[in-house]
Amino acid sequence: MTDFPDDRFETPYYAVIFSSLRTLGDDGYAQTAQRMELAATMPGYLGVESARGVGEDAPGITVSYWQTLDDVAHWKRQAEHLVAQRNGRQRWYSSYRVRVARVERDYGFDT
Amino acid sequence: MTDFPDDRFETPYYAVIFSSLRTLGDDGYAQTAQRMELAATMPGYLGVESARGVGEDAPGITVSYWQTLDDVAHWKRQAEHLVAQRNGRQRWYSSYRVRVARVERDYGFDT
Repeated sequence: MTDFPDDRFETPYYAVIFSSLRTLGDDGYAQTAQRMELAATMPGYLGVESARGVGEDAPGITVSYWQTLDDVAHWKRQAEHLVAQRNGRQRWYSSYRVRVARVERDYGFDT
Repeated sequence: MTDFPDDRFETPYYAVIFSSLRTLGDDGYAQTAQRMELAATMPGYLGVESARGVGEDAPGITVSYWQTLDDVAHWKRQAEHLVAQRNGRQRWYSSYRVRVARVERDYGFDT
């Protein structure tokens, strides 16, 4: 996990914005979600931020950060991640959207 | 609010990824958060998605979507929003980060 939300990365880099609504029940979701921490072992990985509200149908947003578009594509094709994507469509999400974006500005505030 | 997470916008467009940690207590936060729905009246506004976990220090992510960088800058300078940004630094957030990104791909899945 990144040091949410204080990590600053050198622009330009890439953000994958994953917005989702969960189905009811766990059905293996939590275990796979934890396994997806293997993203951190992939080339070009910078960090990840995630937030999900309360309740089974609460919206969730996960943003992962990558150095290049090739790094994004490489992670998308990773074998265990492909299985997770298929299970996501079949079991865990009623809907989701993926947006791939080039981060051009990055600024923050810390007390 | 956008029809989370099912809205598809025509690429390229811009995402403003706002990641934050809240301070303790409300202190006017909820009222201002609701007022910030005036973003939807600004030129170039496409939609917004937001998720925050449970507990006072839970991480939150809000992503707003805009047609152009000028639209992003215009909203950043909007008068009531400037007051909210100042109060955010002084009262509501222990830290936050803003990332401005150009969305190049947008795909989804609905059951």
